[in-house]
Amino acid sequence: MSQTAYQTVLAIFTRIYRYEHLLALAGWDQAAMMPAGGNDARGAAMAELGVLVHNTLTDPLLAVAMTAAAGEYLTDAEQVSLREMKRQWELANLLPASLVEAKTLAGSHCSHQWRTQRANNDWDGFLANFREVVRLSREEAQLLSEQTGLSPYEALMNKYEPGMTCAELDRIFGDVKQWLPGLIQQAMAKQAQETLIPAQGPFAIAAQRELGLEVMKLLGFDFDGGRLDVSHHPFCGGVPEDVRITTRYTEDDFTQSMMGIVHETGHARYEQNLPRDTVHLPVGRARSMAIHESQSLSFEMQLGRSPAFLALIQPLVQQYFGAQAAFSADNLAKIYTRVKPDYIRVDADELTYPAHVILRYEIERALINGEIEADDIPALWDEKMQAYLGVDTKDNFKNGCMQDIHWTDGSFGYFPSYTLGAMYAAQYFAMIRKLHPDLDQQIAAGNLAPIFDWLKANIWTQASRWDTGELIVRATGEALNPVYFKQHLEQRYLA
Amino acid sequence: MSQTAYQTVLAIFTRIYRYEHLLALAGWDQAAMMPAGGNDARGAAMAELGVLVHNTLTDPLLAVAMTAAAGEYLTDAEQVSLREMKRQWELANLLPASLVEAKTLAGSHCSHQWRTQRANNDWDGFLANFREVVRLSREEAQLLSEQTGLSPYEALMNKYEPGMTCAELDRIFGDVKQWLPGLIQQAMAKQAQETLIPAQGPFAIAAQRELGLEVMKLLGFDFDGGRLDVSHHPFCGGVPEDVRITTRYTEDDFTQSMMGIVHETGHARYEQNLPRDTVHLPVGRARSMAIHESQSLSFEMQLGRSPAFLALIQPLVQQYFGAQAAFSADNLAKIYTRVKPDYIRVDADELTYPAHVILRYEIERALINGEIEADDIPALWDEKMQAYLGVDTKDNFKNGCMQDIHWTDGSFGYFPSYTLGAMYAAQYFAMIRKLHPDLDQQIAAGNLAPIFDWLKANIWTQASRWDTGELIVRATGEALNPVYFKQHLEQRYLA
Repeated sequence: MSQTAYQTVLAIFTRIYRYEHLLALAGWDQAAMMPAGGNDARGAAMAELGVLVHNTLTDPLLAVAMTAAAGEYLTDAEQVSLREMKRQWELANLLPASLVEAKTLAGSHCSHQWRTQRANNDWDGFLANFREVVRLSREEAQLLSEQTGLSPYEALMNKYEPGMTCAELDRIFGDVKQWLPGLIQQAMAKQAQETLIPAQGPFAIAAQRELGLEVMKLLGFDFDGGRLDVSHHPFCGGVPEDVRITTRYTEDDFTQSMMGIVHETGHARYEQNLPRDTVHLPVGRARSMAIHESQSLSFEMQLGRSPAFLALIQPLVQQYFGAQAAFSADNLAKIYTRVKPDYIRVDADELTYPAHVILRYEIERALINGEIEADDIPALWDEKMQAYLGVDTKDNFKNGCMQDIHWTDGSFGYFPSYTLGAMYAAQYFAMIRKLHPDLDQQIAAGNLAPIFDWLKANIWTQASRWDTGELIVRATGEALNPVYFKQHLEQRYLA
Repeated sequence: MSQTAYQTVLAIFTRIYRYEHLLALAGWDQAAMMPAGGNDARGAAMAELGVLVHNTLTDPLLAVAMTAAAGEYLTDAEQVSLREMKRQWELANLLPASLVEAKTLAGSHCSHQWRTQRANNDWDGFLANFREVVRLSREEAQLLSEQTGLSPYEALMNKYEPGMTCAELDRIFGDVKQWLPGLIQQAMAKQAQETLIPAQGPFAIAAQRELGLEVMKLLGFDFDGGRLDVSHHPFCGGVPEDVRITTRYTEDDFTQSMMGIVHETGHARYEQNLPRDTVHLPVGRARSMAIHESQSLSFEMQLGRSPAFLALIQPLVQQYFGAQAAFSADNLAKIYTRVKPDYIRVDADELTYPAHVILRYEIERALINGEIEADDIPALWDEKMQAYLGVDTKDNFKNGCMQDIHWTDGSFGYFPSYTLGAMYAAQYFAMIRKLHPDLDQQIAAGNLAPIFDWLKANIWTQASRWDTGELIVRATGEALNPVYFKQHLEQRYLA
């Protein structure tokens, strides 16, 4: 008996999954292991397999098979699986190859030059390349908009956050903008009265790594299906069956490497707990970038920087680095919640971070929708940094609008995921605390199961079965609500 | 203008090379990095890409294009390149897919069971699976023999040692059998008069690794295009642009890990110095398994275990492990040349190793040519071990005929490469010593350039341009001649 169209489609997506396994491994190796001299050959090999994946997804026979499959009798689960395959298919098929190629080239050129231009604070040099990236990104947004019915900016955001709309974002971020600046001021005023004892280095790298592995164990990382290594930019890579997280170490500070490990372990546990029976299909993958970030931020912000967790791991810190006044649970909590408005997003604290994201969202949306031009960005950046954080970035392009890699290659629509993730995480924990009013005592006593069990049941094992909105309602009983984020921040920074 | 058939063929082999890059990386990672839980997904991903490579090579359009290319005007270099592409093509096309699949299945089953059967000394259990492996290997040999005009055993050996014949091997190994047993006896008698001081452990693993890296530096390993890691079975993997070697450490002995690193560095420098302009084509690859082994054995046996080299690195050994009487250059040389006939090939010393190989060659050739059956192996093994090494293996299958993995999956024809490699290495060094009569003084003084320059010019950069016979004549002025091997052994073990 011949197989159904649906089965044929499944076999093709399974093949793609296996190719992507090798691409993920090669990418991890490139960042964590590969010597510089191997880069050209690696790039050529990865590009070759990337082309194969793209060709497989854009084969007209696949389109025919997917249409035929949609007409077959399918179970509910199969229909959902087909919906997610369709999403991956659309990402590869909605744009003409010529546009994809032009944008890749312009983005890679702009991104490459940006590395030196940023160091030289060379906005004009950057602008010369960046205008073309903006032009092609607008063209992409326009084409996607026409085919999806979304606005141009939404159509780009849809690649990372399927289902999220600008109306929803404006409602949420508009709310945050009402209370965030005041909250930052209050928190800073409070912290000005407090004494923080800095930890005294050096902290041996080998000890930092051992401590990191202990913390990963505590957080339930499955070492039979993953590793910890080092890379310049920490990330979570590999495949669900073999998750590779990285961190970076510096001898004078262990706090960053340790909390970086907590963050990546959040990503890792999501991947490690995706449902194994569909892990080879789009429906079995992580739901979206914001949901992924909500896992790392559940681990880092909700759990990792909480006084209860820091009390739990404080003995480990002393075990590896000896006793210091700085290592009291109370002082560690101060270190990990210090608020300081500053230039750089990736170094920002929990409280000022959303201001960085909202600023970028407002600027990139206006840019893609054609309300401003690339040339207008510095003035707008400075104006918003002054308004939201009181920071002056005039003529300071390198620490201002040139600081992030995202725009350089045209990854517009990505930034909102970071703060959406922080908000989802706050909403999860409000729910978990309602179910476990004694959560902090449990954490301090080393019982993290209430958290992991809830995340596993409500997020990890759900993968891409529901769209994001439904996933959140099913998990927490309501749609994304920024009030939980606000309550969390007030509780942590003002109480 | 459309491209020529030759250019089309080149493009396809370049594509295959890039796929094989990812397979090589995945294989290295599997052995050196991957946690056990990742194995199933990794196996599926590698098999999928392996199928793609096979399908690419067996596409009938490629056969047409290769025939067309052969009829085009080609330069000498292009003709040679096409000859080597043809060789890779034949390895994939001469056998029916059904036979390849049946042999892979039988071999993988037999190999998997062998791991426990060997531990249990279970020859009968092994035989039940092994008979089928032999049957399919004979079928393979017969089919290859009919298409190549070689004898059945030669046709299998041809996969690893293209061009080598049984007549040639019989001539060479026949000569060795004349003098080797006597030489072993004389060396043992001489060593019985000498005092060897064992090195006193423990030797910290971190220090062993640092020492290994120092030795690699001394040996010219290019760290911009390669790494040193750890695996259960040491190997040289990766790709020419990014060579990954491994070793294994045990705290009570540093001598094995160090000499293992010297051995793998020999493989690595061959790969790192293949001509970069053809590295993506079969003509730019290493010539054969024996020539590859001749590089690792040039480094390990000719250079690494020589008194001059041990005098050179003796200060490094002291630097990492402190001073010991055992670390005199003279005593290190004794440690690294100790002769002791024993059961296990992989643990054998330089002098008894060829006996292990010749025994296997004689048995596997008789088996493939149908002169004996699988059931006859143990008796024959015991008889030959007694004759060549005076070792009794009666009923000791696990340390006798069940010790190697090669036969379990039907890799008949591979064993001769090991000893051919040792002989080529001896012949190279006879030539290098003729050009540099003061070679030992140069080595002791740290000038290894005479060796590396000669190997680079005569072997590494020649890749697969010549067949093995011509490569050796061009490099040394004559065909493979076992007299150099004999002279080397006499000089080292009797002088």
